[in-house]
Amino acid sequence: MAGNTLGELFRVTNFGESHGPAIGCVIDGCPPGLPLTEADIQIELDRRRPGTSRHVTQRQEPDQVEILSGVYQGVTSGTPIALLIRNQDARSKDYSNIAETFRPGHADYTYWHKFGVRDPRGGGRSSARLTAPTVAAGAVAKLWLKQRFNIRVRGFMSQLGPIPIEFQSWDHVHANPFFAANATQIDELEAYMDQLRKDGDSVGARIDLVAEGVPVGWGEPIYGRLDADIAHAMMGLNAVKGVEIGAGFASVAQRGSEHGDELDPTGFGTNHAGGVLGGITTGQDIRVSIAIKPTSSIRTPRQSIDKAGTPTVVETHGRHDPCVGIRATPVAEGLLAIVLMDQALRHRAQNADVHVDTPAIPAHR
Amino acid sequence: MAGNTLGELFRVTNFGESHGPAIGCVIDGCPPGLPLTEADIQIELDRRRPGTSRHVTQRQEPDQVEILSGVYQGVTSGTPIALLIRNQDARSKDYSNIAETFRPGHADYTYWHKFGVRDPRGGGRSSARLTAPTVAAGAVAKLWLKQRFNIRVRGFMSQLGPIPIEFQSWDHVHANPFFAANATQIDELEAYMDQLRKDGDSVGARIDLVAEGVPVGWGEPIYGRLDADIAHAMMGLNAVKGVEIGAGFASVAQRGSEHGDELDPTGFGTNHAGGVLGGITTGQDIRVSIAIKPTSSIRTPRQSIDKAGTPTVVETHGRHDPCVGIRATPVAEGLLAIVLMDQALRHRAQNADVHVDTPAIPAHR
Amino acid sequence: MAGNTLGELFRVTNFGESHGPAIGCVIDGCPPGLPLTEADIQIELDRRRPGTSRHVTQRQEPDQVEILSGVYQGVTSGTPIALLIRNQDARSKDYSNIAETFRPGHADYTYWHKFGVRDPRGGGRSSARLTAPTVAAGAVAKLWLKQRFNIRVRGFMSQLGPIPIEFQSWDHVHANPFFAANATQIDELEAYMDQLRKDGDSVGARIDLVAEGVPVGWGEPIYGRLDADIAHAMMGLNAVKGVEIGAGFASVAQRGSEHGDELDPTGFGTNHAGGVLGGITTGQDIRVSIAIKPTSSIRTPRQSIDKAGTPTVVETHGRHDPCVGIRATPVAEGLLAIVLMDQALRHRAQNADVHVDTPAIPAHR
Amino acid sequence: MAGNTLGELFRVTNFGESHGPAIGCVIDGCPPGLPLTEADIQIELDRRRPGTSRHVTQRQEPDQVEILSGVYQGVTSGTPIALLIRNQDARSKDYSNIAETFRPGHADYTYWHKFGVRDPRGGGRSSARLTAPTVAAGAVAKLWLKQRFNIRVRGFMSQLGPIPIEFQSWDHVHANPFFAANATQIDELEAYMDQLRKDGDSVGARIDLVAEGVPVGWGEPIYGRLDADIAHAMMGLNAVKGVEIGAGFASVAQRGSEHGDELDPTGFGTNHAGGVLGGITTGQDIRVSIAIKPTSSIRTPRQSIDKAGTPTVVETHGRHDPCVGIRATPVAEGLLAIVLMDQALRHRAQNADVHVDTPAIPAHR
Repeated sequence: MAGNTLGELFRVTNFGESHGPAIGCVIDGCPPGLPLTEADIQIELDRRRPGTSRHVTQRQEPDQVEILSGVYQGVTSGTPIALLIRNQDARSKDYSNIAETFRPGHADYTYWHKFGVRDPRGGGRSSARLTAPTVAAGAVAKLWLKQRFNIRVRGFMSQLGPIPIEFQSWDHVHANPFFAANATQIDELEAYMDQLRKDGDSVGARIDLVAEGVPVGWGEPIYGRLDADIAHAMMGLNAVKGVEIGAGFASVAQRGSEHGDELDPTGFGTNHAGGVLGGITTGQDIRVSIAIKPTSSIRTPRQSIDKAGTPTVVETHGRHDPCVGIRATPVAEGLLAIVLMDQALRHRAQNADVHVDTPAIPAHR
Repeated sequence: MAGNTLGELFRVTNFGESHGPAIGCVIDGCPPGLPLTEADIQIELDRRRPGTSRHVTQRQEPDQVEILSGVYQGVTSGTPIALLIRNQDARSKDYSNIAETFRPGHADYTYWHKFGVRDPRGGGRSSARLTAPTVAAGAVAKLWLKQRFNIRVRGFMSQLGPIPIEFQSWDHVHANPFFAANATQIDELEAYMDQLRKDGDSVGARIDLVAEGVPVGWGEPIYGRLDADIAHAMMGLNAVKGVEIGAGFASVAQRGSEHGDELDPTGFGTNHAGGVLGGITTGQDIRVSIAIKPTSSIRTPRQSIDKAGTPTVVETHGRHDPCVGIRATPVAEGLLAIVLMDQALRHRAQNADVHVDTPAIPAHR
Repeated sequence: MAGNTLGELFRVTNFGESHGPAIGCVIDGCPPGLPLTEADIQIELDRRRPGTSRHVTQRQEPDQVEILSGVYQGVTSGTPIALLIRNQDARSKDYSNIAETFRPGHADYTYWHKFGVRDPRGGGRSSARLTAPTVAAGAVAKLWLKQRFNIRVRGFMSQLGPIPIEFQSWDHVHANPFFAANATQIDELEAYMDQLRKDGDSVGARIDLVAEGVPVGWGEPIYGRLDADIAHAMMGLNAVKGVEIGAGFASVAQRGSEHGDELDPTGFGTNHAGGVLGGITTGQDIRVSIAIKPTSSIRTPRQSIDKAGTPTVVETHGRHDPCVGIRATPVAEGLLAIVLMDQALRHRAQNADVHVDTPAIPAHR
Repeated sequence: MAGNTLGELFRVTNFGESHGPAIGCVIDGCPPGLPLTEADIQIELDRRRPGTSRHVTQRQEPDQVEILSGVYQGVTSGTPIALLIRNQDARSKDYSNIAETFRPGHADYTYWHKFGVRDPRGGGRSSARLTAPTVAAGAVAKLWLKQRFNIRVRGFMSQLGPIPIEFQSWDHVHANPFFAANATQIDELEAYMDQLRKDGDSVGARIDLVAEGVPVGWGEPIYGRLDADIAHAMMGLNAVKGVEIGAGFASVAQRGSEHGDELDPTGFGTNHAGGVLGGITTGQDIRVSIAIKPTSSIRTPRQSIDKAGTPTVVETHGRHDPCVGIRATPVAEGLLAIVLMDQALRHRAQNADVHVDTPAIPAHR
């Protein structure tokens, strides 16, 4: 499989380069009958859009999505949904000094060796801009999951660099540029970011995701496990270096008597599983956490080589995110929704006839 | 895709239940011309085999592999390689008391709701026994990677429960039951395990993997990234709850000026990337770390329900691993090899004609 | 995709060589809950088995199938079903004279160039023996289609070499070695075959297939059309050189006013469509016809080359089918069932929520 | 797989509806380094374009293709190539009388039952208009095959309705509206078509395809055979009801002594195989023939039902092709090229290391 398609039954094929004519995706496998408009998708894209705070890249892209196919009279027709986003503000001149060099920690070097074609403008296809189509497709998946199963997918920033961010309420997430579920630490985070920008450096972040209302039974062992698909999608997101489900790496030091979530008819006691056991959903909230590395495009001079292999020093100017993680939350939510929808359809194909008398245990007591 | 196949071009289809007639796999896509014997595969299976130390399950399975197809006169023929392992020692009677109950933290509950068929004997298909065919297929991949590219895939236990295990030398890994690359902490680990067994409890572990010699350029952005495939395979391994590449979750607090690996013609300075940038290999060692949760099958009484939904208490007797992580290393190595071989073939399909003059930077200075 | 897997959701992976230890398949995606025994599969295999009449190859293979996994207490568990058939009667010595030569019209030459490994014994993987696992998997599909949808898949020989065979009744198909739906032409066909054997030559055949009871709506335009999948499966069957749906090549000279099947509430008037329109089932009987070429393994001397490229003459002795088409009917039925089951599951995934008030038109008035 | 993607390594995802905003495709898997411009693709689209003769639909669509991604500085970058064709001339009013009825022999009825959404305008996604993106993708494949392997893919009409068309020379194909390789029968064909239009009826056609220069060894038995893939692609083309390879249905009555193509070092004697043996290319010309049924959209009144199931009579007015086959040749060529390119990449992945000393036999003596 030429690697630009995600999913088996709900399939998203992504295309575009950062400074090409357009970016977008084709969604194949969305069942017919889902009400869908460009506004539904635009809402999610606007959450991710650059230029919406001083902490993210100052490239001005309206990211207006156009639905080219797959929707008839405001409802999905069951045919492929092509979504198009034209690139508007591509200032190529800011990248001229890096055409011949490779930025440390960036994909320049690997893309050059793999493709033999160097598109230095804004990272070409390795750019985080290519997460916009993922968000668009994720919007469709979120809608269907909500309508069909009343599933809710949400995320928040749980750590910015060295600063843990306490979860206070979902209501705060939209009210600050960080997607933090917090109202009292925002000034601290803003100050930290301002200093970072002055230093010409960057930092990482941790994002947590929660999917509520997922029925028990989704996931296809042994290789098509739901948690495996989630890890695949998340680790495939630009700049992600780690993925955890439930207790994650804390499981290493836990004892079985502590880790295993007890259950009774009123619900599960704990959720160390993160909603997945044996690769299949339990009905508990699905809980994922991802580690995002610091951006490689910084003003600090770094040692590297150029295309001839000669040692050189690289400094990146132009418009950049000092913390890519700040805009990652909507993208990670979209990915989780895409994976869940794909697994929902797969479950429907294989297990639609399965009925057991055992009641499904509620997620929370 | 019915989820029992891993890979696109080097494809492994796994079959079998813990107490059925046999387990095994079919490997499709191994190129012709690779010398292969049952002994080559048996070596890897024996590393994983139960009953080889007092710290692992005492079920006695010889796990003798038989090659049913795909090899002619000691060399792969390019046709599917079917590997068969007959089940010998399946003592079903030890599981009779759990036929009607669901063990907390185990896949019993989720498999019941998904398939409507409860095979209580040894966990059925959710059993860790089904990692044996993965190891067998991984053995083939390891051979091909070694022969074709001189790639070496190895792993070791880096933490047992709360005890970090220092990496001293690869030479120690085979000399203790933990796959620890260490000679001085073994007694400490043995004592810890003995106490755990007395307590009737279990604990988790962390396993580190290293692949050396992987050329630059493997991986298929944006959704078929190599790190995404690695995460998929690892998170799909029984009991894994977290996956990291390179600096992993430490990246969150790192600054870009520290995280990005500088490079010069003599090599890379550091390896926070873990060998992957933009989803493509850099030529650096690929470094992966996984978190394995504690086993759910413990003697400690745990609250749960039975098939009718009635509250009950579960205690598991019989033969069990107090630490599943102890046997995970060969399986994780096999998975990493399978993913790398699949990506090697995909790279060969798409990028065989790419040649750039830039020298590939050595992994180490 | 390494080409040994058929299907997307009901997936069959075939393995084995004609004279290797065993042949078989792994079926992934069969939903749980289907009653299944080895006897159910053996019935279909016995229809195909060599040595059952003097008109087919005299190799004696019991073709006893063993279920290795995926069935628990007589019912499918929703996990992969591995089916094994051991090879018993492999007389390699009959093939010694062809080890270095390529038989005209046979896959020897192409397999040599593709794999660089020549297994001369019985054709290796190119042998028609490898249709046995397909029949086994087809048996499972037939059962599920019958149980779940009351679909019936049957075939018959409609032409033997130059002799058209009139369809008189399905009741005759099992009563002659040709799978002819005819009682009055059998002596004529037997005499023709005897002469052919004396001549040391071979001839082709045409097989017709009918699937009754398929609901309207299966098929996934534009590339996953049902007729496309049928054509793929059929043309992939050994020795097939042509596939028709409905009126087939007669459509070329037909006028639209004649070809288009009129419909009224009591049913369709004709069935030139063959049960498929726009790639989707109409509810009419699905009608397929395939052309099978004459076997290449004949006693008649033929010009060819050897492995060094030197001109030579080839005569094939040993046990061979003078008409491969004689045993093709059960295999073609199995393939049609596999394709239909795969499409059924795909339809269930994508279109389970679609309900229209328009009544489905009956297949026949 | 949601059925709108064709291919495994050279993958084409098609989107769009006949009267939606746009149609197009995303090509994933084209290797980097192929020179490609919009003009290269436009040439092929113009061959298919409606309104170019009085014998085809009079809808005026410029079918101007735009490359949205995947090409940088006139050369493919190895990233997905998105091709867009805006719909211009969509006269919906001509279809108002069929909104509630189903045309016999058309996909209206099946699409309604499958999707529950009836887009009556121009057939929605079932329209032959959706072959334009296939032609566009086929243009890319043709270029790559030519550049990389010097392969040439061409087709011609070999029969129009009841009239066989003699092959005289490839030079004539572009010089008449039928893609006939003939200069002396054109008037006869024109007269036949004029009468057909007066009668308000339609007729079928037979198209032959030839691929020259394909190396020996492409194809992936047993289910990924090249002829199987060809049949899949061809039978999936709108209005195709039959596919033949080489001698096709003539093989039925042929004897093995006649059918098998003899070979000597100077070449193959005949080509009944059609260039494929055992599912793998021989190096001979690949020869395919397809049967195209007559269009269902005719002025002749036909019995049918409406959405409520009530009997009705249907006459279709508006712009229609009296013979869909007239424009099929460029589409069928494109499909053959796509399949060959996909198989070329798959062969490169799996068999790149295979080298045998036996010389490849030339296609022609």
